[in-house]
Amino acid sequence: MKKILIVGGVAGGATTAARLRRLDENAKIVMFERGEYISFANCGLPYYIGGVIPERDSLLVQTVEGMSDRFNMDIRNFSEVISIDKEGKKVTVKDVKTGKTYEESYDVLVLSPGANPIKPPIKGLEEATNVFTLRNIPDTDSIKKYVDENKPQESVVIGGGFIGIEMAENLVHKGVKVTLVEMADQVMAPFDSEMASILHTHLKDKGVNLILSDGVSHFENKGAKVVLNSGTEINTDLTILSIGVKPENELAKSANLALGERGHIKVDKNMMTSDPNIYAIGDAVETVDYIFGSPAAVPLAWPANRQGRIVADRICGIDSKYSGTLGTSVAKVFDLTAASTGHNEKALQRMGINNYKKIHIHPGSHAGYYPGAFPISLKLIFEVPSGKILGAQGIGYDGVEKRIDVLATAIKGNLSVRDITDLELSYAPPYSSAKDPVNMAGYVASNILDGLVDVIYYNEIDELISNGGVLIDVRDAMEIELGAIDGHINIPLNELRDRIDEIPKDKDIYVTCQVGLRGYIASRILAQHGIKSKNLDGGYKTYS
Amino acid sequence: MKKILIVGGVAGGATTAARLRRLDENAKIVMFERGEYISFANCGLPYYIGGVIPERDSLLVQTVEGMSDRFNMDIRNFSEVISIDKEGKKVTVKDVKTGKTYEESYDVLVLSPGANPIKPPIKGLEEATNVFTLRNIPDTDSIKKYVDENKPQESVVIGGGFIGIEMAENLVHKGVKVTLVEMADQVMAPFDSEMASILHTHLKDKGVNLILSDGVSHFENKGAKVVLNSGTEINTDLTILSIGVKPENELAKSANLALGERGHIKVDKNMMTSDPNIYAIGDAVETVDYIFGSPAAVPLAWPANRQGRIVADRICGIDSKYSGTLGTSVAKVFDLTAASTGHNEKALQRMGINNYKKIHIHPGSHAGYYPGAFPISLKLIFEVPSGKILGAQGIGYDGVEKRIDVLATAIKGNLSVRDITDLELSYAPPYSSAKDPVNMAGYVASNILDGLVDVIYYNEIDELISNGGVLIDVRDAMEIELGAIDGHINIPLNELRDRIDEIPKDKDIYVTCQVGLRGYIASRILAQHGIKSKNLDGGYKTYS
Ligand SMILES: Cc1cc2nc3c(=O)[nH]c(=O)nc-3n(C[C@H](O)[C@H](O)[C@H](O)COP(=O)(O)OP(=O)(O)OC[C@H]3O[C@@H](n4cnc5c(N)ncnc54)[C@H](O)[C@@H]3O)c2cc1C
Ligand SMILES: Cc1cc2nc3c(=O)[nH]c(=O)nc-3n(C[C@H](O)[C@H](O)[C@H](O)COP(=O)(O)OP(=O)(O)OC[C@H]3O[C@@H](n4cnc5c(N)ncnc54)[C@H](O)[C@@H]3O)c2cc1C
Ligand SMILES: CC(C)(COP(=O)(O)OP(=O)(O)OC[C@H]1O[C@@H](n2cnc3c(N)ncnc32)[C@H](O)[C@@H]1OP(=O)(O)O)[C@@H](O)C(=O)NCCC(=O)NCCS
Ligand SMILES: CC(C)(COP(=O)(O)OP(=O)(O)OC[C@H]1O[C@@H](n2cnc3c(N)ncnc32)[C@H](O)[C@@H]1OP(=O)(O)O)[C@@H](O)C(=O)NCCC(=O)NCCS
Ligand SMILES: [Ca+2]
Ligand SMILES: [Ca+2]
Repeated sequence: MKKILIVGGVAGGATTAARLRRLDENAKIVMFERGEYISFANCGLPYYIGGVIPERDSLLVQTVEGMSDRFNMDIRNFSEVISIDKEGKKVTVKDVKTGKTYEESYDVLVLSPGANPIKPPIKGLEEATNVFTLRNIPDTDSIKKYVDENKPQESVVIGGGFIGIEMAENLVHKGVKVTLVEMADQVMAPFDSEMASILHTHLKDKGVNLILSDGVSHFENKGAKVVLNSGTEINTDLTILSIGVKPENELAKSANLALGERGHIKVDKNMMTSDPNIYAIGDAVETVDYIFGSPAAVPLAWPANRQGRIVADRICGIDSKYSGTLGTSVAKVFDLTAASTGHNEKALQRMGINNYKKIHIHPGSHAGYYPGAFPISLKLIFEVPSGKILGAQGIGYDGVEKRIDVLATAIKGNLSVRDITDLELSYAPPYSSAKDPVNMAGYVASNILDGLVDVIYYNEIDELISNGGVLIDVRDAMEIELGAIDGHINIPLNELRDRIDEIPKDKDIYVTCQVGLRGYIASRILAQHGIKSKNLDGGYKTYS
Repeated sequence: MKKILIVGGVAGGATTAARLRRLDENAKIVMFERGEYISFANCGLPYYIGGVIPERDSLLVQTVEGMSDRFNMDIRNFSEVISIDKEGKKVTVKDVKTGKTYEESYDVLVLSPGANPIKPPIKGLEEATNVFTLRNIPDTDSIKKYVDENKPQESVVIGGGFIGIEMAENLVHKGVKVTLVEMADQVMAPFDSEMASILHTHLKDKGVNLILSDGVSHFENKGAKVVLNSGTEINTDLTILSIGVKPENELAKSANLALGERGHIKVDKNMMTSDPNIYAIGDAVETVDYIFGSPAAVPLAWPANRQGRIVADRICGIDSKYSGTLGTSVAKVFDLTAASTGHNEKALQRMGINNYKKIHIHPGSHAGYYPGAFPISLKLIFEVPSGKILGAQGIGYDGVEKRIDVLATAIKGNLSVRDITDLELSYAPPYSSAKDPVNMAGYVASNILDGLVDVIYYNEIDELISNGGVLIDVRDAMEIELGAIDGHINIPLNELRDRIDEIPKDKDIYVTCQVGLRGYIASRILAQHGIKSKNLDGGYKTYS
């Protein structure tokens, strides 16, 4: 009879335990959780605080009693594992309530200790009475209680990652004014800046006071005042500190398990640590990037759940392996959905990867003639010349994460940008178009690979014009009145063939339109009249 | 300068023409359309009739003038191509308004003539003044005019395919009572009967008088009465005949182009007909099934658009190929979405294919604790032992076509049911669960492939019980009160280990629960206590 100890009783740990029991009715399974609650819905916490999820109980996916009964396991909450004896194959456990410790032996140890909110040593933080982080049920209870009792008017959310943004949305939903402070020049790191700027506009539209490129210098007055690096002072009744998480690695560190550069527990494809009797999973670990095979640590629920099941399989002799993390994610940002998979340009640049191209398109979420269609801003990044998909980002009101999921699936299916033109996706007017946005992204990207059109990007055009380039905007005069790039010449697409002589022969020619489609057609017309041109990717929409 | 004639100016034809011009500014392109309108939104017609799409103009995606201007092409509406001289490489064209005919030569001819609604020689149909079919703008105008002028109270829709169902929904939306008559024992042929039955319930809930397994015998009283084969008589102010389409093949037939068994124009992977100078695309053609390579004709917009672009490529020397049709489709059925890809069981049976298994699951559209989650009924059919995905069907209120699109992508990426457990899909509570329904389908299917559980199906259990099998329902007593399978024994899952002695050792044991999950766990417990059992796939939910 195998004895398996699991450290951490939530996403990764509880999943491991459940699958273990299904595979092996006789194993002895002990799950330790230092907190009171196991198996809760971390991802629902902001929505419970905001009142969107009305019942606290619904956050508790499983309880100690319910799960013990169903899965016949020994679940010990309020029990912190404080050290590992690798050679002796035993751990020391502290009863959090009594402080007493005891030892427990294992055949296999599984670590799923998660991550902790980063709390830098900011001056005044210790004394502050209104600053909270959010990770678990007690955190949630504290914030909820504070909000209900103190009825804050003004709040500050520090950090524009997905938890920060979800908290901002939920505080606004509660009627609290929110200032969102982000050190970087954009929110939501998975997105490149031109995509994130769509989110910035929307956050401001929703009344969020958005402060970018600025960080917290210190807190004053028990937290009632936040002072930023720039000197800006903000009064606040409630502050959420959500600047990211760091892996919970104390236990692993003290046991001398191999750690990655950023402190995550290193594991191989079997989720095995540097000790063959110890596995680790979830937010605490460093696995590999699915696309490049480089080290990767992505603290999300899908990897934790997936890895939990894989570990259970391996312990029971089933040859499951973790293939790496793509980083697919999605967040609701007020009325918008922002989803992404794979790498963004910033990440590629950091890795020194330059053999890629990108496109921006703005297809409708469904057929334009059927009510309720909204454009999706879709960015696709692909390797040249192979056409391999490196990453995708989508932002819009509807149908966004569907396209990202399709693209995440395409990546796992090894499909190139050419192959996605051939995806036969479901179409009826309420759902899509006969060429789905994913197909369209494939077409636009393939045209670049095939040399049918050459493109320039939103951040290059101004300089190209000031260096003497000629930009032809092929939209109709009416559209141009609503906004256009300085220095353009207007020749509506339908007049282009007749007015081709107006185009200077000795200058660099660029074309543009609203989203890039008509610019592409114009570029094709010009090419075949012997005039080389480059189309502005994404058109005026991406530029503005 | 190549001269290309295109017959048919809507989905396939107009797409071919547009891509042709982008690739070749100098080609002479003539597009013939026998009707007045080109490039209209066929798929939007029912919604315009129902008033969901308010503006008629929005159905006209392109006009003769607009498209001629933009693409510099010769578009001739009211012009029917009435014969092809293959050897002489010319066609005869009839001016529909004047009746005059003329010849036009070609280098390449592209046929995209579409399909026609089937109108069987039913007695009384000719005399009927209130029976309509729906294919194009004039059909739409007639129906709309008739509805507006005659304010029908009662209507009959004959045929429960997707156009019939869309018309039923839109007539109900207009306040017209609808009787839907379908010859088969189910609506929506892409679905197997247990899935279609979900639609039946919903249609009835929405007030549709649904008559299955009955057909029209004849019309009486200028169509005011419909008499069915069963003798049932229905009074009707308006009747929509939507029992399917047949390929428009007159031209091809008279030109002796090779036709398929059901009369479609045969084409190869290049969309080339039996004549090397003639291509054909869209509803009129027979291509191959993507999965099995057998002949396939699927009259949907995606294939027409895709094939149009491929033909344009080929004409311009680009080596694009059509890889076959999966048959991915989706329809809005009142508040439900019904989507599918690949083959259903009925089709597999017809093809004599038996080496498959299927699963039914009912995962939430997104996390259960976040408001607005509804179960999706998802059926996945896969080859054994390979795990190759053969087809999927989904029905539910939200997030349905997303999962079908992911599965359609998985099929094109050659991913098996094991591989889809590894799809890293986007998760936040409003969108999905940490194990997406597609992952879950993969897990449930893989467990069967791996021999972790054996299943029986909803349509087998009654007989198995009456033959002496023992069915253990592991739900709680409260759930069972709401409905259960006759003859079951109730042992709640959490008591199973303690009450294992109650299970007879000499009988065949079956287990069930609400959706199959707890039954699976029970089956795993029993197996490891030496008791073989089979789990009822989909649980009571699929059974009922
Ligand atoms: C507010 C919030 C919103 C989120 N939203 C999303 C989302 O929308 N989508 C998404 O994909 N992900 C989301 N996540 C992330 C997701 O919840 C995590 O990726 C996932 O829970 C990680 O699982 P885990 O098992 O590694 O860690 P956890 O689920 O955090 O579980 C670790 C547990 O281990 C316990 N533990 C640690 N050390 C010890 C010890 N020594 N002894 C005993 N117990 C110990 C901890 O108390 C903790 O309960 C969100 C997280 C938060 C906090
Ligand atoms: C009401 C309705 C709803 C639909 N909904 C959907 C949906 O939701 N999803 C989906 O995928 N598909 C849907 N479809 C199907 C889709 O519209 C067709 O698959 C698609 O239009 C086929 O394109 P095609 O070019 O083959 O034929 P068509 O688009 O029908 O074009 C053929 C044209 O050729 C012309 N023509 C024929 N013969 C000649 C000739 N000899 N000379 C000159 N012109 C000729 C015809 O007049 C016709 O206009 C729907 C169809 C209808 C009618
Ligand atoms: C209107 C119609 C003629 C348009 O055909 P089309 O020009 O091929 O299609 P689109 O307008 O969608 O444009 C697609 C082209 O623009 C390009 N494009 C789209 N967005 C772009 C962007 N942002 N930047 C650059 N290029 C873009 C695509 O690459 C593609 O060009 P390609 O085929 O040369 O690669 C045709 O779709 C039609 O007749 N539709 C109505 C009928 C119909 O389809 N009915 C059935 C469904 S209701
Ligand atoms: C609650 C929890 C313990 C459940 O773990 P679990 O039992 O592995 O997961 P599920 O309840 O989703 O069930 C999945 C299992 O049921 C099976 N299953 C699901 N539906 C089924 C059906 N209809 N028929 C048969 N089997 C089914 C699956 O195959 C899978 O079993 P397997 O792993 O042996 O293949 C765990 O998910 C958890 O702790 N969740 C909360 C924490 C969390 O994830 N937080 C982050 C997100 S907020
Ligand atoms: Ca939608
Ligand atoms: Ca949804």
